Amino acid sequence: MAKVVTFGEIMLRLAPEGYLRFVQADRFEIVLGGGEANVSVSLANYGLESVFVTKLPKHEIGQMAVNALRRYGVDTSKIARGGDRVGIYFCEKGASQRPSKVIYDRAHSSIYSAVSSDFNWDEIFEGADWFHFTGITPALNPSVAALCLEACKAAKAHNVTVSCDLNYRKKLWTREQARETMTGLMKYVDVCISNEEDAHDVFGIDAENTDIDSGKLNHEGYKSVARQLAERFGFKKVAITLRSSISANDNDWAALLYDGKEYCFSKSYHMHIVDRVGGGDSFGGGLIYSQLMGYSTQDSIEFAVAASCLKHSIEGDFNHVTVDEVKALAGGSGSGRVQR
Amino acid sequence: MAKVVTFGEIMLRLAPEGYLRFVQADRFEIVLGGGEANVSVSLANYGLESVFVTKLPKHEIGQMAVNALRRYGVDTSKIARGGDRVGIYFCEKGASQRPSKVIYDRAHSSIYSAVSSDFNWDEIFEGADWFHFTGITPALNPSVAALCLEACKAAKAHNVTVSCDLNYRKKLWTREQARETMTGLMKYVDVCISNEEDAHDVFGIDAENTDIDSGKLNHEGYKSVARQLAERFGFKKVAITLRSSISANDNDWAALLYDGKEYCFSKSYHMHIVDRVGGGDSFGGGLIYSQLMGYSTQDSIEFAVAASCLKHSIEGDFNHVTVDEVKALAGGSGSGRVQR
Amino acid sequence: MAKVVTFGEIMLRLAPEGYLRFVQADRFEIVLGGGEANVSVSLANYGLESVFVTKLPKHEIGQMAVNALRRYGVDTSKIARGGDRVGIYFCEKGASQRPSKVIYDRAHSSIYSAVSSDFNWDEIFEGADWFHFTGITPALNPSVAALCLEACKAAKAHNVTVSCDLNYRKKLWTREQARETMTGLMKYVDVCISNEEDAHDVFGIDAENTDIDSGKLNHEGYKSVARQLAERFGFKKVAITLRSSISANDNDWAALLYDGKEYCFSKSYHMHIVDRVGGGDSFGGGLIYSQLMGYSTQDSIEFAVAASCLKHSIEGDFNHVTVDEVKALAGGSGSGRVQR
Amino acid sequence: MAKVVTFGEIMLRLAPEGYLRFVQADRFEIVLGGGEANVSVSLANYGLESVFVTKLPKHEIGQMAVNALRRYGVDTSKIARGGDRVGIYFCEKGASQRPSKVIYDRAHSSIYSAVSSDFNWDEIFEGADWFHFTGITPALNPSVAALCLEACKAAKAHNVTVSCDLNYRKKLWTREQARETMTGLMKYVDVCISNEEDAHDVFGIDAENTDIDSGKLNHEGYKSVARQLAERFGFKKVAITLRSSISANDNDWAALLYDGKEYCFSKSYHMHIVDRVGGGDSFGGGLIYSQLMGYSTQDSIEFAVAASCLKHSIEGDFNHVTVDEVKALAGGSGSGRVQR
Amino acid sequence: MAKVVTFGEIMLRLAPEGYLRFVQADRFEIVLGGGEANVSVSLANYGLESVFVTKLPKHEIGQMAVNALRRYGVDTSKIARGGDRVGIYFCEKGASQRPSKVIYDRAHSSIYSAVSSDFNWDEIFEGADWFHFTGITPALNPSVAALCLEACKAAKAHNVTVSCDLNYRKKLWTREQARETMTGLMKYVDVCISNEEDAHDVFGIDAENTDIDSGKLNHEGYKSVARQLAERFGFKKVAITLRSSISANDNDWAALLYDGKEYCFSKSYHMHIVDRVGGGDSFGGGLIYSQLMGYSTQDSIEFAVAASCLKHSIEGDFNHVTVDEVKALAGGSGSGRVQR
Amino acid sequence: MAKVVTFGEIMLRLAPEGYLRFVQADRFEIVLGGGEANVSVSLANYGLESVFVTKLPKHEIGQMAVNALRRYGVDTSKIARGGDRVGIYFCEKGASQRPSKVIYDRAHSSIYSAVSSDFNWDEIFEGADWFHFTGITPALNPSVAALCLEACKAAKAHNVTVSCDLNYRKKLWTREQARETMTGLMKYVDVCISNEEDAHDVFGIDAENTDIDSGKLNHEGYKSVARQLAERFGFKKVAITLRSSISANDNDWAALLYDGKEYCFSKSYHMHIVDRVGGGDSFGGGLIYSQLMGYSTQDSIEFAVAASCLKHSIEGDFNHVTVDEVKALAGGSGSGRVQR
Repeated sequence: MAKVVTFGEIMLRLAPEGYLRFVQADRFEIVLGGGEANVSVSLANYGLESVFVTKLPKHEIGQMAVNALRRYGVDTSKIARGGDRVGIYFCEKGASQRPSKVIYDRAHSSIYSAVSSDFNWDEIFEGADWFHFTGITPALNPSVAALCLEACKAAKAHNVTVSCDLNYRKKLWTREQARETMTGLMKYVDVCISNEEDAHDVFGIDAENTDIDSGKLNHEGYKSVARQLAERFGFKKVAITLRSSISANDNDWAALLYDGKEYCFSKSYHMHIVDRVGGGDSFGGGLIYSQLMGYSTQDSIEFAVAASCLKHSIEGDFNHVTVDEVKALAGGSGSGRVQR
Repeated sequence: MAKVVTFGEIMLRLAPEGYLRFVQADRFEIVLGGGEANVSVSLANYGLESVFVTKLPKHEIGQMAVNALRRYGVDTSKIARGGDRVGIYFCEKGASQRPSKVIYDRAHSSIYSAVSSDFNWDEIFEGADWFHFTGITPALNPSVAALCLEACKAAKAHNVTVSCDLNYRKKLWTREQARETMTGLMKYVDVCISNEEDAHDVFGIDAENTDIDSGKLNHEGYKSVARQLAERFGFKKVAITLRSSISANDNDWAALLYDGKEYCFSKSYHMHIVDRVGGGDSFGGGLIYSQLMGYSTQDSIEFAVAASCLKHSIEGDFNHVTVDEVKALAGGSGSGRVQR
Repeated sequence: MAKVVTFGEIMLRLAPEGYLRFVQADRFEIVLGGGEANVSVSLANYGLESVFVTKLPKHEIGQMAVNALRRYGVDTSKIARGGDRVGIYFCEKGASQRPSKVIYDRAHSSIYSAVSSDFNWDEIFEGADWFHFTGITPALNPSVAALCLEACKAAKAHNVTVSCDLNYRKKLWTREQARETMTGLMKYVDVCISNEEDAHDVFGIDAENTDIDSGKLNHEGYKSVARQLAERFGFKKVAITLRSSISANDNDWAALLYDGKEYCFSKSYHMHIVDRVGGGDSFGGGLIYSQLMGYSTQDSIEFAVAASCLKHSIEGDFNHVTVDEVKALAGGSGSGRVQR
Repeated sequence: MAKVVTFGEIMLRLAPEGYLRFVQADRFEIVLGGGEANVSVSLANYGLESVFVTKLPKHEIGQMAVNALRRYGVDTSKIARGGDRVGIYFCEKGASQRPSKVIYDRAHSSIYSAVSSDFNWDEIFEGADWFHFTGITPALNPSVAALCLEACKAAKAHNVTVSCDLNYRKKLWTREQARETMTGLMKYVDVCISNEEDAHDVFGIDAENTDIDSGKLNHEGYKSVARQLAERFGFKKVAITLRSSISANDNDWAALLYDGKEYCFSKSYHMHIVDRVGGGDSFGGGLIYSQLMGYSTQDSIEFAVAASCLKHSIEGDFNHVTVDEVKALAGGSGSGRVQR
Repeated sequence: MAKVVTFGEIMLRLAPEGYLRFVQADRFEIVLGGGEANVSVSLANYGLESVFVTKLPKHEIGQMAVNALRRYGVDTSKIARGGDRVGIYFCEKGASQRPSKVIYDRAHSSIYSAVSSDFNWDEIFEGADWFHFTGITPALNPSVAALCLEACKAAKAHNVTVSCDLNYRKKLWTREQARETMTGLMKYVDVCISNEEDAHDVFGIDAENTDIDSGKLNHEGYKSVARQLAERFGFKKVAITLRSSISANDNDWAALLYDGKEYCFSKSYHMHIVDRVGGGDSFGGGLIYSQLMGYSTQDSIEFAVAASCLKHSIEGDFNHVTVDEVKALAGGSGSGRVQR
Repeated sequence: MAKVVTFGEIMLRLAPEGYLRFVQADRFEIVLGGGEANVSVSLANYGLESVFVTKLPKHEIGQMAVNALRRYGVDTSKIARGGDRVGIYFCEKGASQRPSKVIYDRAHSSIYSAVSSDFNWDEIFEGADWFHFTGITPALNPSVAALCLEACKAAKAHNVTVSCDLNYRKKLWTREQARETMTGLMKYVDVCISNEEDAHDVFGIDAENTDIDSGKLNHEGYKSVARQLAERFGFKKVAITLRSSISANDNDWAALLYDGKEYCFSKSYHMHIVDRVGGGDSFGGGLIYSQLMGYSTQDSIEFAVAASCLKHSIEGDFNHVTVDEVKALAGGSGSGRVQR
């Protein structure tokens, strides 16, 4: 059983029920989530040893986050406890032409004040096979960025494969800040996950002949982005996700995996969305699993996209699917007939 | 007012709220349902005298099932009380590419232990016009199958029309067991309801030139199945339902009714699904009603399919529609404009 | 900050949860709404001074209505208190081919017994810029119709622009009654909002070459209706809304604004509907706002339709959107990408 | 199986969740209830043939009332259908020093417009053993009072025992109106149920030496009231309920039954209240059952009070208890130990 | 109509449903509340002009707070908008021996960053009669304390009566910090509200012969505390609240008002608690109202305590009661009989 | 960190919301629970290494049980997966004089079909300090009883302390069956937990001078029962729980611990009950913890009873309390004052 470590923030997601707007709400549904935590839950659901590293307060709200991870099989024994608050994001689900809206209230959460002594990286990476983080984590503040760098170095010292989902968040840092910090981290990364916009925002890498808003997929453009990323940073693999947003309810979804030789595009799925948040993370989870299992490049990207497609039909940040369910979609018709 | 008797199991259906997966649930919505019970509720809603026969425990969970039927006007006075448990099925609603999932926990329910003396068939069929059962009931166990046979014989002795929906359930019996038992029952059946797969699974009857997964409807193939069924068992009428599953949210739905002479295809409906379970049973309910009312073959199949189409927009197993609502759809545009 | 007055009834809307039918409900979701109240909330959300005039009982149910308006910034200080009941409408949400259903229980509500001395129109219209009412209000009973006439006269005496949404309700009065009463009111109206059916039902004005049920939009027909309305009553502006109902879940939505010279058609939106009720009122709210802000005819109709399009994605009668959100849709792609 | 007929109004009870006040509510829990309907459900739960007579609209809200009665086994076949609305009462649950609050919105409901031809009393009382009504029904309006009189006469013509719970409602009529109308009805009544206040309000009958607000029970006073009632109207039995309200959460509850010879006081129960509404009706239901079963005067009053005590622990108007449960309390310790 | 201004923080209160513990919750009920905001809502409910001053972010979560105040009639036009977050407190309801638990997450909320230019105190106090704040507000941070001082000075400049509820919060500051800051503010205060512990914690004032944990009320001790407070700071009135906590569900509640001459003790109430939070604030609201109305010292304290007693029966921070309801309790029996 | 193993069944508990009766429910709240599982959660909450051993089906309903345990920190790695169903118990919460009602539907659950090879007892008890089971587990069927015996023997072979809560369930076996099987198991038991009734039902051991229904605690009687149990089976410690049921809402609760020398009675708590189920198990959890921590006999029983007292204020089977919370109650006043 492969062991995968992720490092980042897990937040309390507070969302009005159904399609209610914030100003109509008198109740919030509670879900826990965060880029790397979502990946960890995916991997635990696939049966891997999945370790999530973060810092959370000792009080009961911190415990709620720990429990949410334990419930789905994530190893929480390496989580540092301390600090004052759990980061929060308020999330309003969009519909039709009305976009979903996310309001972050994450500053000053426990992870912001994490220090080097909170984590014993050598112990954490003992026996590990893979380390994953996203561009959100170093964006939190410079000291978390420094912890990210520590983790990357320790991972490499333990011969652990490192993946990173660029995930640019403009509310957390500027493009310039992102570029500088992320460039420093990329040297430790083996597998890079991005989409067109992130490649542009973080590294100024653009595809030719692609119009983000047109909804049309430009295969050559995606290949160009993947190749440029691989060349600039020496990534072994680059995955590019391809989302076409038709409305808040309907998206098309596919991806490309470039292994330095082949460019493999997945099938494209037309999705009726139940919950779009965590869609990218579920792709990361699927990709890591399929890479660890030694799938071919084509099979790997099909697994990752099918996993992610299913996530869009599931409430919350976490992707509650099994390997069998993902394989059934990747290999089958997706016609949604009742399973009795 | 025509009187219709059905015989079968009614189960507690426990479902997570909305699109939650089982592992996310902390609450189950309770609905009662079962193939024949669903038909009985349809017929009570259409104003017929509708009698449902089963066995249920004396305790309050059994009473919940009785009350659910009474609430919608079904005559429950012929239900035997005894045994230990109400059958349960857990039901998770699918979305987009993720299929709905049903987990049965029905073994050892009260109906499994029903015996001949639990039911006075002569009294039950006194004044009855129609008897309906599905292939699920004899599949429960051999003693329930024997009760089915008793019921069929008694129905015939009272000149009651008998209908059967083949409804093959692979978790309850093998194809071989189904074929043997169902063949024995078919001689009492006047009206047979099936789809292509059930005809194949139960009786090995195949349509030519049809690909179940293609989503394309093959008219000639359906006619072939209907004709073979009618010929082999001497059915007066054969109805074949035609479902194309595009995704868990979107299905096309139509049907064919063969009366020994004409093959009448209904309109086809493109449905956004609220709840797919009970869709076939609502077709049965519509067909029985329209046959009892003496509708023409074409009108009968249009009524049955419109009734069933509406069911897909209704939560739960039961089809809560009136004759007027079904007629409005069968005869109208289905544009869904607000009725003020 | 412009000041807008509306006059009408606000009702308790009681609706089963989700897509449940009335006979399945054991809980009602409470929303307050009514044609003119909905417009008032839209305008308060856009930052205008928005005054809603009605009569409501002194008891707590009456207070619930007052509070619902205050919550969203409507000025309720001109509401008369007295009478016995708050009007109610029961509302069942449709899906796919099953239409939404509204059962009114509004007779004998407080507004029915309102008298002239309940309202000080001079005070109400002091400093006002716009007065809006719908055809529902004079339909309630002759004494409310008389109050409407008083309000119109007072508005004109204060040089207030008057708009009216024809909104024919066949359960409240006959076409003949409507025509007589509405004709008397139209002389005070500057801006008329209608759709094809209302123009026909209330004034017998028909478009050439249009088939309401065909779902096809006939531009020349709509222009013809707008022109006839303007000519007959001397309206300065006429807005015609264009709804194509594909199913209870899917509608196309657009509108035409005729300013006496130009006929400006808006973009058309294909909407996945969350809640269709209040869709027309949100159009009125958008139109009044954009007219008061001095938008061009084309910009005005685009704003009104975008506002209304967003309303269809929002639960309840009220349109909870800001000017910025409406402008973003009117000017943008409507692709529903997450706003972080 | 004895047959009992009741006649009156069944209303939609709309209540905020838990202890929320009206102005906090955004959801109403729906319960159906009404004095006589509550008695009918009690009797159906005890296994009697229980017929409830009223008038309800044909639409779905009327159907909700019919279904609520059918669900619990009441015979609804004699309910007239027509009229416009179902009566409503809004109900806010009190706690501690804050009293429960009821706002009625029942005027103009279907029963208000019921006419003689809506009910075939001869058919209704065919084979009946008992007829029950309360003082609320004749209070609705004079024409309903006339229907009550018709029912009483028909009941007597069929040798049916008649019971009446005086139940004075000051919002429906004055004491003078009540006295006149009720006096005319009392000659048909065999069993009278009252409390001290109703005896005073309706008939000006006062007990000596009793202080309603003192919370102390004055046995001699109650006996005096019972005796005066029996003497003035020739009742065969008089039951006086004895409620001491300590707070909205805590009441003491007992009763007296006078059979013309003996005065039998029940045990007194100290109750933690779940829902106080319907408490008196459940007493009526228990009394009718125990009288029909031929219980001794002491056993009868114990059964009635135990039934009513249990009602206070049950949500809604209806008393969902079995004969066995009532007997267990009447004969036992009431210590509330878990029944496994 | 008297005008009352309050200044402080309003927070999002997030609470698990019913008696669930934090670690069991998957939903939070949303209530807005805060010491001074609660007082403002009380006063708006009593019909006064009630102005609440604070700073809230511009985003929708900030708007939720504004709307909650508007809904209940509070004037929100003086609220500054800006900053990043709404303060949060998580609240778990206790039962029996298990205490309620509050986890604060209020640091860095918008009010923390408020500056002098956010508020135009002269405009705010124009025409005002009363200004109220609590010891929580200056405890937030020194700059908010400075704003408090500005407000007090401006109030005095406008001849506005000033009241302060000491409300010591040990998580916000030390006793020493509290003493220094509060001493500086007390010179502007006319009416002081405290309990024994706050008098001790903030000013080191102790009653003789009182044991806080004994649950026994020591009248002489309370008088001693009131007298010492009045003497040290020159308060015109001192109110001391007297809570005896028997369990999380049961408290006794009374108060003393000292007007410089008389010591008036209120009745004592034994309360079954629905929601204890906001109990002290509702006392403040009642006291301010009854003082403004010119009630006698005895009547004033009875009104304040009855108002507060009722609050304990109401969910949320706000006290949703009318003057009539408070008077009914202050003058009556509190027996909790249903109000029909 | 001590390691504790428990063995038994974990069931799906399905309960109507609040105080609703089964026949009123349309939703079940889902909680997982079972005698030994409840103890395991208590111990995990206290920070021990807590291992729960059972058998559960592989499907999602089985996974729900695993996840509920993981969420609260229980080690589920020793749970065998297989079989068909998760045992269910339906649970209706009582109030006042109405008792709670439990309907079991546990037969044929996965644990019923567990076999010796499902568990590797040597591995399970490696490094363990304590083994706990209840009398419910061997009552399930003879093969589970045999597994219990295996576990006891293995525990002893590993020098593990063994505790047993007698917990007689009359629906599972007769007193004679219980006595025989339990007698065989007692030789492995070091610490016995019982109440008076269980001692009587299982072993025919009676206290002198005690009346179970009187609600009075007879100290000498309890000591007699403890002494007899210790003498007959050689237990090192015997704990006797003392429950007085005043109503379904109010119980008194205390216990006695006999260590062979001293008889230590705990404080007695008067509890307002939130959820009584699991109350005994929480006592067991507290006792095991305090014994493992080496508490004195008096401190141990105080800790166990305080833990259990708190459980009665918590929804569900599990006792969600920390060591600090239990100690605070055991050492303090239990006055339920808010913890801010």
